[in-house]
Order: sequence, then C-alpha cells, then structure tokens
Amino acid sequence: MINRTAVIGLGLIGGSFALALQKHKICLDIVGYDQSSSSSAIALEKGIITASAATIAAAVAEADLIVLAVPVLSLEAVFAEINRVLWEAGACIRDNLVITDVGSVKGIVVDAATRVFGAVPDCLVPSHPIAGSEKHGVTAATADLFNNRKLIITPHENTLDSAVQLVSDCWQALGAEVIYMDIKHHDEVLAGTSHLPHFLAYALVDTLSSQGDSLEIFRYAAGGFGDFTRIAASDPVMWRDIFKSNGPAVLKILDRYMADLERLREALAAGDTETLIDTFKRAKIARDYFTSLQNDDAAGNTQ
Amino acid sequence: MINRTAVIGLGLIGGSFALALQKHKICLDIVGYDQSSSSSAIALEKGIITASAATIAAAVAEADLIVLAVPVLSLEAVFAEINRVLWEAGACIRDNLVITDVGSVKGIVVDAATRVFGAVPDCLVPSHPIAGSEKHGVTAATADLFNNRKLIITPHENTLDSAVQLVSDCWQALGAEVIYMDIKHHDEVLAGTSHLPHFLAYALVDTLSSQGDSLEIFRYAAGGFGDFTRIAASDPVMWRDIFKSNGPAVLKILDRYMADLERLREALAAGDTETLIDTFKRAKIARDYFTSLQNDDAAGNTQ
Repeated sequence: MINRTAVIGLGLIGGSFALALQKHKICLDIVGYDQSSSSSAIALEKGIITASAATIAAAVAEADLIVLAVPVLSLEAVFAEINRVLWEAGACIRDNLVITDVGSVKGIVVDAATRVFGAVPDCLVPSHPIAGSEKHGVTAATADLFNNRKLIITPHENTLDSAVQLVSDCWQALGAEVIYMDIKHHDEVLAGTSHLPHFLAYALVDTLSSQGDSLEIFRYAAGGFGDFTRIAASDPVMWRDIFKSNGPAVLKILDRYMADLERLREALAAGDTETLIDTFKRAKIARDYFTSLQNDDAAGNTQ
Repeated sequence: MINRTAVIGLGLIGGSFALALQKHKICLDIVGYDQSSSSSAIALEKGIITASAATIAAAVAEADLIVLAVPVLSLEAVFAEINRVLWEAGACIRDNLVITDVGSVKGIVVDAATRVFGAVPDCLVPSHPIAGSEKHGVTAATADLFNNRKLIITPHENTLDSAVQLVSDCWQALGAEVIYMDIKHHDEVLAGTSHLPHFLAYALVDTLSSQGDSLEIFRYAAGGFGDFTRIAASDPVMWRDIFKSNGPAVLKILDRYMADLERLREALAAGDTETLIDTFKRAKIARDYFTSLQNDDAAGNTQ
C-alpha cells in the first residue's frame, strides 16, 4: 500500500496506471499533473486521479511514489523540476521516495537523470510497460491495460534493491509480468520489435497516401492492411521522441532490414521465386512461433 | 438459384464460397475438387461441398458455375483441363456456363485464358474478393467470410454482361459489396494496399528472426508487432504466385516505398526531427481516414 502517488503526464499510460492503482487498492490518493489543463480536468472528472495539481512541484510535494509518464524527451525538464523541489546538496530530502518512469527508451532516461542530478538517483527505477496502443490520450485510459502484459525493469547500478522491489510489486499487482533487462539490450530489442515496425508503418501509409489517386487507394484496402498499418495512427510526438532517443539502435536494425529488403527486391525483379518462397516460409515459421508464445502466455495466465 | 456449382481448389476462399452458397441457398449442389485428396475429404466430411470429384473433368462436367480458387499460377493448367473437356472448335459446348476466379492478380488470369483458349472466353468473369486472412486451408473456411467485404469484378471486353450479372448477384447475396474496376488499375491498387504490405511484413519477420539472439527477440514483442506481422503467417505458395504474377506493379510501388524509406532514414540519421514528425503526422491523418472509411462501411451495413 502506497500513501500517495504522483502521476506526471496523464496520457494513455499515465491515466491507465492511475486507474489500475485505484482498482487494485494499491494507492487511493493519486495526484495528477499534465501540462494540458484539459487532460487534468478530464482525469479528475473521470476519477482517474483523486486530485489535480497545477504544477509538478505541487504534485510531487508529498508523494511516496512518483510515476513519470511523459514523452521521453520531456523527462529531463521534469527531472529538473523534481531536483529543484526535492533535492538538496545532491540528496533527496524525502526518505523512501521512489521514482519510476514508463518510457519506451531507457538509455536516454538515465542519461537525462545523470545530467540533472549529477548521477542516477538510487531511488530511480527505469521501467517500460509493453502495453502501447494506437489509441492515446487520457480518454483512452483503462484499468486493465497492463493485465497480462510484460513490464521491463532496467535497473541502473545505482538503483536500490528496495526501490526495484516496490516498483516490481506494484506492476505485478496490476497483472503485469515483470522482466529484468540490461538498459542497452532493452533499447536494441525494442528497436527491432517495436520502433522499427512503427517506422515502416508510418513510411508505408505516407507512401500510399501520396500516390496519384491520393486517399482513394484506401477504399480497396482490407483487414490485413488495417492490421499492418494500425500502429501508424500512434501519437506522432511520442514517436518522434522515441526515434530521437533511440536513433543509433533503430538505424542499426533499419539498415539490416533495408539490406534484406533490397535482396528480396532483387529476387522479385529477377523472377527468382525460390528466394521469395524460402524467405516467406522462414518468416511464416518465425511468425507462427510468435503466435505460439502469445498462446502460451494466454494459457499460463488462466492458471 | 444455380443448379450445380463446381469449386476447383478447396482452400480458405474456395471452401468459404462453397459454404456461403449453401447457407444462402444460392446453390445446394456443390461438387468440389482439390489436388489434395485430404482437403477434398475434409470438405466433404464437414459438408462444405456436397460431392467430391476425383478429377477436374468430373467436377466441371455438369456445372452451371465453375469457381476457380487455386493459386494464380495454377490457373493456366486448370483452364487447359476445362478447355479439353468443355470446348470444341474454340467454343464452349455448354450453354449458359459461367466461369469465375478469385485470384488476387487479374492481368495474369486473362493472359492465361488467352493462351489456353485463343481468346478470353465470353463466359469468364475475373473477380477478386478482398477477404484474405493469415489463416488458410479448408479447415479455416467459414460461411461469413465475404459478409461486408468488397468483391472486385474486372470484366474483360469479351465478357458477357449476363455472366457478370450472375457473378455479381451471387456475391451480393453472400453479403459482399461488388465494385467494378479496370484490370490494370486493379493490379496497381492491390500492389500497394495488399501485396506490398505482405512483402514488407515477410521481410521484417525474416530480418528479426535472423538476428543474433534469434527467436528470443519475439518474447518482448507486443500487440502492435503482432498486428503488424500477422500477414507474414499467410500461405507462402499463394504469395509467391501473387508476386510472380504482379511483379512489375509491385516493383513500381516497392521502389517508391524504398526511396521514401531512404529519405526517412536520412532524417533519422541526421536527427532531423521536423521531417520525422511531419511524416508521422501526415501518415496518422491518412491512417485515421482509412479507419473512418471502415467505420462508414460498418455503419452502412447495419442499415
């Protein structure tokens, strides 16, 4: 049980986390802050938060747990404000405070914290719920968003075990499966499984919509296309921040992909159907393996 | 009402069409043929077809409607068999026979028909239901597959209006919205909205699964990745045929995509976040427009 939680950033993730904390009775006093006063007002009206703060300073003033759910490039400014209010002579003035974030890139979080605080604070637990959606904003928040989803914690060497434990307990109580990962490995894995697909989907929708017949082309697109491009409806600002924050890792896997795509293009141009079908078969086996993992997870969760 | 329908090729589309014809009482005598005798046996056992033929000749012998639901590169051999059995001195020996296909590429269909019959038969109605799935095979067949889906008819200049009318009536009775399109335009539009996304998805899954940590990477992939790559579980043989049959149109849009992707890669490498966010915003607007089209269709269908 946590006495007071401050949620900074009331979007899909921040709002859903606040709702889930209340639903699972982990914390019933949740003060929220968002730079958009209308988001704060909606969150308060919908009972997503129990109090709305006009400033970050007011939100974090008496919190035991601070959850930072802002786009990753906004984290440094939030750290600076927390540093101004809660730090003195390089040390936090509050005992047992725990700070965590939910950013999709983790290297940038500890870099920003190091710049602001001089070193990564021992109470900071970098985390990442694998629970995005093309829906965004506080109105899309739901208490069940993290149920049966993975939550990756990437502890820094400075991070206190007790702080990691509190954050882990909290997410597990919300139904998430907690995984630990090295910060650099996290950013490389997510570059492939999440950031690259978003990059490709944005590019594809943009290419098709700039065709001669413009948006008319979408009239003849079907379910497979809808699934494939759904992620291109995601929040542009959030994704700009992710690509700026994880540029080198995304470039590395993007260049591998573009080289593979070039080879497959050559096979198509040459009528080399053997290469095409070999690639399709390998990919189908891998994709079916992914499906089996999802089914295993679903089965495990019913036990 | 059709007396007897022959369905050649008992996969997802052929099987679903046979089921739907029975459900809507459009035809109750459906003879099926598949080169896999186990697919034929399953189709018969499940009541998807009412009779199983051992040869194409036997299947088409007394049919009023012949539906060809085989991979597009297999169509020429099926045409040849139909030509051998039902044509004499360049003319069909059966009055009022209608032949249609369900291939994802239409140019190749009329080309194959021209090679076999000397000209496109007036009873041939090239068609394409926009109702694929990553599921395939006769066991995935369902009577509702075409409900609320689009069905594109691309009549050849030789095609009889009466044959087009019969095929159109038939699909509309199954719940499909019938659209007419020029053959070349069809193949270009589908190259962008269907064939290219499949090409990119196969390539992405193959790139990721050949990474150093191999399939372990998929453990950390989430819903967005699952949606994005679902089409990479599609039937490799069917898709090899589609790419071989529609190579020039796919290459044209693939080259545009690769050029756009290269520009977006340069922006990423240069930290040019303006270009990134402009592209993401444009793509999001287009993708949201696609969603609105789908919602309009859904609303229209409830009237």
